[in-house]
Amino acid sequence: MAKGLPKRSEDYSKWYNELVKKADLAEHSAVKGCMIIKPYGYSIWEKMQAALDKMFKDTGHSNAYFPLFVPKSYLSKEADHVEGFAKECAVVTHYRLKNAEDGSGVIVDPDAKLEEELIVRPTSETVIWSTYKNWIQSYRDLPILVNQWANVVRWEMRTRLFLRTAEFLWQEGHTAHATRREAEAETVQMLNIYATFAEEFMAMPVVKGVKTESEKFPGAIDTYCIEALMQDGKALQAGTSHFLGQNFAKAFDVKFADKEGKLEHVWGTSWGVSTRLMGALIMAHSDDEGLVLPPKLAPIQVVIVPIFKTEEQLESIREVADGFKHELLKLGVSVKFDDRDTNSPGWKFAEYEMKGVPVRIAIGPRDIENGTVEIARRDTKEKKVVSKDEAVQYITDLMEDIQRNIYAKAMDFRAELTTDVSSYEEFKEVLDGKGGFVSAHWDGTAETEEKIKEETKATIRCIPMDAEEEDGVCIYSGKPSKRKVLFARAY
Amino acid sequence: MAKGLPKRSEDYSKWYNELVKKADLAEHSAVKGCMIIKPYGYSIWEKMQAALDKMFKDTGHSNAYFPLFVPKSYLSKEADHVEGFAKECAVVTHYRLKNAEDGSGVIVDPDAKLEEELIVRPTSETVIWSTYKNWIQSYRDLPILVNQWANVVRWEMRTRLFLRTAEFLWQEGHTAHATRREAEAETVQMLNIYATFAEEFMAMPVVKGVKTESEKFPGAIDTYCIEALMQDGKALQAGTSHFLGQNFAKAFDVKFADKEGKLEHVWGTSWGVSTRLMGALIMAHSDDEGLVLPPKLAPIQVVIVPIFKTEEQLESIREVADGFKHELLKLGVSVKFDDRDTNSPGWKFAEYEMKGVPVRIAIGPRDIENGTVEIARRDTKEKKVVSKDEAVQYITDLMEDIQRNIYAKAMDFRAELTTDVSSYEEFKEVLDGKGGFVSAHWDGTAETEEKIKEETKATIRCIPMDAEEEDGVCIYSGKPSKRKVLFARAY
Ligand SMILES: [Zn+2]
Ligand SMILES: [Zn+2]
Repeated sequence: MAKGLPKRSEDYSKWYNELVKKADLAEHSAVKGCMIIKPYGYSIWEKMQAALDKMFKDTGHSNAYFPLFVPKSYLSKEADHVEGFAKECAVVTHYRLKNAEDGSGVIVDPDAKLEEELIVRPTSETVIWSTYKNWIQSYRDLPILVNQWANVVRWEMRTRLFLRTAEFLWQEGHTAHATRREAEAETVQMLNIYATFAEEFMAMPVVKGVKTESEKFPGAIDTYCIEALMQDGKALQAGTSHFLGQNFAKAFDVKFADKEGKLEHVWGTSWGVSTRLMGALIMAHSDDEGLVLPPKLAPIQVVIVPIFKTEEQLESIREVADGFKHELLKLGVSVKFDDRDTNSPGWKFAEYEMKGVPVRIAIGPRDIENGTVEIARRDTKEKKVVSKDEAVQYITDLMEDIQRNIYAKAMDFRAELTTDVSSYEEFKEVLDGKGGFVSAHWDGTAETEEKIKEETKATIRCIPMDAEEEDGVCIYSGKPSKRKVLFARAY
Repeated sequence: MAKGLPKRSEDYSKWYNELVKKADLAEHSAVKGCMIIKPYGYSIWEKMQAALDKMFKDTGHSNAYFPLFVPKSYLSKEADHVEGFAKECAVVTHYRLKNAEDGSGVIVDPDAKLEEELIVRPTSETVIWSTYKNWIQSYRDLPILVNQWANVVRWEMRTRLFLRTAEFLWQEGHTAHATRREAEAETVQMLNIYATFAEEFMAMPVVKGVKTESEKFPGAIDTYCIEALMQDGKALQAGTSHFLGQNFAKAFDVKFADKEGKLEHVWGTSWGVSTRLMGALIMAHSDDEGLVLPPKLAPIQVVIVPIFKTEEQLESIREVADGFKHELLKLGVSVKFDDRDTNSPGWKFAEYEMKGVPVRIAIGPRDIENGTVEIARRDTKEKKVVSKDEAVQYITDLMEDIQRNIYAKAMDFRAELTTDVSSYEEFKEVLDGKGGFVSAHWDGTAETEEKIKEETKATIRCIPMDAEEEDGVCIYSGKPSKRKVLFARAY
């Protein structure tokens, strides 16, 4: 493994790109904007999926699968929705290739033109609500609590691995309810699940809030979101949960008969997180040596590196290592024993630092003599020599401590980089200085929001759910405001 | 639930279609050829995925993700491959829609034409081998053992739910090796994994064999397959494992330096099973009352139906049911207690028969008095009154018995419907009579294979791996043959 990431302080963006590559997480493909998620990166995504999927199922949701293609006319049925998605979509127009007559290769067969073009789904509200129309007749058919794990495509010209790609993987929940109240409760429940996942698994603190009109999902009444802060002081939207009202039910004419037999439009929600979370996870904790993973999402939680010169030394180390492996596996800890003789211990140390393995055990001949092992934690890089007999307990405690510590560190960082300001001057100073979240009064108009964005590149990340009502004046227009909102430059 | 499937004996094809619909497995979508996999159907697929994924990982494979889109030029790099897939593919030609000037809605923006068309992947060999080129330099980089769970699209005019759809879900393994021997061993290993999965989880016996030249995967040297027999006497290809030789390595110029530093082309395999397995599972065991599921793949293994008139009766039944549920869950058995008062017990019995739940417990007031429960098995529909205290053990034994029994039944059926023939006359009689697998001598030529197919609609399913060498003459041409091959009409 070639060492040497750029330092975060020197070129954060290059640091990120190199880290994604050197930790074997993902790479660009030959298809513009589409990424390849490499096995190590994908194994982290699988851990995320497993944790989220369990939370969805524990709250009564089931998975299903809906078509990749959306007929063009479907996309158009909800006015805001088509406006939001038509500008960046992959369009299938033909269903066959044929050999060129001049022998130059295969060409699109002009005789195989589709009557109606198909859009590769950018999101599935339209396909799913056109289906729900057939699934819902009466209140007995409600609620429908369905999720899908899928790929989606939103054409992007400027892409970054995990953060912005033309194709990405995600889950999209789509629920249907008899009442507004129930749909709203679902929207908030799913937001809370995302926040819990971000904080407890990713060790990444998030602000829960509501998007402004101009930032909300095309077709939603309200978009709730979780916003995280990256180490460069930029915000990242990590998940969204939309209260759709009756918009899609109206667009696709989905009604149900209530207990009195009266026909009503159905209430809907949708909610999603994507492989963008990988980008957030990478940027939230990692350092100049590489990835730092929370133990709960690390595919390899403990790596054992033997330090040996002779085959006999390796054998006696292997005996100890196998014992650890066995005991840790019983406790559900994933362990790798790297006994390759093609690479030096130093090379391996750097490799597993780059890959963010939370705990490293090194065992050498002297350890064998003394009945000890050396245990290093990835987050603080502290090392400790521990008696062999106490090592398993030490490691399980350590993993909990690492999970807590990187969360606390990210929490402290966010606290430092969240600033209340009361003037536009101060607002701009903070943004250009330390960056981060800036809490400020805003007059509630799209005009002001747009002006601030144009002038500073900062957007309103959300109106925090815990924002208290307080009288103030908008930092930009001086007009009255009832509560502060959270601004930031963002990914 | 509306009862009444068509009988298999009267209209097998309609029976299948209705069963898929009434058991809530899948339905057609508005997009021609694309299906919707409903929550209940998808939960069976999830069980299949989990079992297969574990088998892949236990044999050293990792999951990854590659792009949905294949540049047109990539598809063309392997001559047989493009020939096999160009005729039925979805072609993305544009990346934007815009509002029509006449206000009639959105249209494809002619200014957003792609320089090179993109094909929605029908399979990913080309994308993956173009990537492996960058991953492989030396023998140390080999083997690469990667799998991907994904959606693929092969344009189909005539579609059937699960069996033949334009979009389907599958896994595709793609491995790269330093030697021919190792790649061949991988090909056979994965075939064996598929056979084990089919037999042990799906309770579906399969024949392992090799495809003929004309039936093999476009781009492969050899295609191995597992072939199952459906209740209508038609065969179904349930999984394939391809030895690719160096074909894709040559097409994408993927070479590695061996230990002596000599550059060699890499050897490859690919292997896949798809949601087609759902069709096979449905057809292998189900009956005129509905689905019959093997316990190992049943999302609900045990359903408890209370029989009650009063709320007090329900309460005392609930107490017993909760006890069972608790005990069975501890043993890893999935249990549903259906206490809805909106449907009668008879309706529920029919519903869970339709859905193939392996074991049904009915508990009524008399059972409460007597300390008993009534246990019914879905496969044979036998019922037995069992003492409450013995019920848990009875049920766990019963599930094993059901798993065994439906396998044995399918095995007997296949034995009855596998016929050795020695003349073309007999061959046609069997095909038009009982159907099934027909074992016959074939002269090994594509001409004969094609003639037989034209005249009888039967194809060579495979050359069974356990076929013994025996001298004979081709039933069609009378030319010499060294072994019998397996013919059938097929899905
Ligand atoms: Zn209406
Ligand atoms: Zn070559």
